[in-house]
Amino acid sequence: MVTRTSDQEIRVAVSTVILTLRRAPVVDQPSLALPLVLRTRDPYQGDWALPGGWLEPDESLEDAAARTLHETTGLSPSYLEQLYAFGAVDRSPSRVVSIVYWALLRSDEVDAQSAAHVASGLAPENVQWFDAAGLPSLAFDHTQIIDYALWRLRNKVGYSRVAHGFLPPTFTLADLREAYEAILGKRLDPANFRRQVETSDTLLPTDEFRTGSHRPARLYRYNDAVELADRGPLAVEEKRTR
Amino acid sequence: MVTRTSDQEIRVAVSTVILTLRRAPVVDQPSLALPLVLRTRDPYQGDWALPGGWLEPDESLEDAAARTLHETTGLSPSYLEQLYAFGAVDRSPSRVVSIVYWALLRSDEVDAQSAAHVASGLAPENVQWFDAAGLPSLAFDHTQIIDYALWRLRNKVGYSRVAHGFLPPTFTLADLREAYEAILGKRLDPANFRRQVETSDTLLPTDEFRTGSHRPARLYRYNDAVELADRGPLAVEEKRTR
Repeated sequence: MVTRTSDQEIRVAVSTVILTLRRAPVVDQPSLALPLVLRTRDPYQGDWALPGGWLEPDESLEDAAARTLHETTGLSPSYLEQLYAFGAVDRSPSRVVSIVYWALLRSDEVDAQSAAHVASGLAPENVQWFDAAGLPSLAFDHTQIIDYALWRLRNKVGYSRVAHGFLPPTFTLADLREAYEAILGKRLDPANFRRQVETSDTLLPTDEFRTGSHRPARLYRYNDAVELADRGPLAVEEKRTR
Repeated sequence: MVTRTSDQEIRVAVSTVILTLRRAPVVDQPSLALPLVLRTRDPYQGDWALPGGWLEPDESLEDAAARTLHETTGLSPSYLEQLYAFGAVDRSPSRVVSIVYWALLRSDEVDAQSAAHVASGLAPENVQWFDAAGLPSLAFDHTQIIDYALWRLRNKVGYSRVAHGFLPPTFTLADLREAYEAILGKRLDPANFRRQVETSDTLLPTDEFRTGSHRPARLYRYNDAVELADRGPLAVEEKRTR
């Protein structure tokens, strides 16, 4: 067996993919958006990149992801989930393994946290939200990382999770369907969608209705009894330490 | 914003959890088993640990997992899936982030690959297979890692996947049910189990039967049309480079 050295010259970074659902002023349908940071130094100076940075020796992976996200964007999701570890040899000019976390945020949470960041005077000018369907040229393998996050979102999330992540505590079935349409990138039949939601136990009808220019629409809430993200044995062990 | 150093003193390791289904000589039911390696140096000298080692600067994460697994155990699964990145600050005396991969192997594959490893004269004496339900004291956070792998196996695998991972190309429903019982740690009702399998499209009946001391039992095979592990955009990008 070959004896290997441990002088690796390999560094560990963290990045985060923060997704929200945003309704542009004129457009009728909401769409997925995420924050990117303009790189002010090499490599990839002048390109956009996911929020992130180096892992410090005294912090856990999730702590590092939360810290670097907050430093650059002011965002503090209550929960970051590990997405994947990206470690291709050529993903960066030097050897960097990046542990990527992700979270879904409601647009009102984004607005409140971003406003607080601006008010604190710490908000850098090099952060910008982009529509997931119209990304600029990205540094490193960050295009691939975002593709993977969007694919996971399309494949793995259920009604409850999307409702919890993107929508306010109560919402109409039209709100939820539009969220799904943004995620899947296609229109869904309203009647079929209603049937599927009503036969699942992840959402519960309330006695309230939204009134306005259309006919009243019943408000739903997600079912707290259905766990949002079951990480099993990791749920306790990896709790954020601060 | 604080400027952080990149002189991290953090090292990257890989480990693998290889699970097989093993039928002990006397016991009627098969059970989950995995290979562990006896540590011959500190830290944790004399304790058992998952196969693994350091990531080299010129190899991908999956390549490193495959290499270190083969060096220690002789095993070469056709496919390793990334399980999780473990990075708690106190998981090792020095700071080590470990990217863990996992695979399911049939017991006949294990036997053939292990025999070839012994014949090559490279087989170390410090590798041993353990019943997942009766593990010894483990180094680092490897008990937690195995708990997480077993939880993922219980929660995420479907009939097809278990059949593909643990069973030969054709198998009886009793074979498959026993595999499930080993994974779930409980007995299942044979009639209910048969009904569930027959209504899923992940397994297909063949025209062959196993005969013997019992009444003939139909052989099934998994449905190749159902993809075993859909990694989406990663499937192409992360293909093993050797």
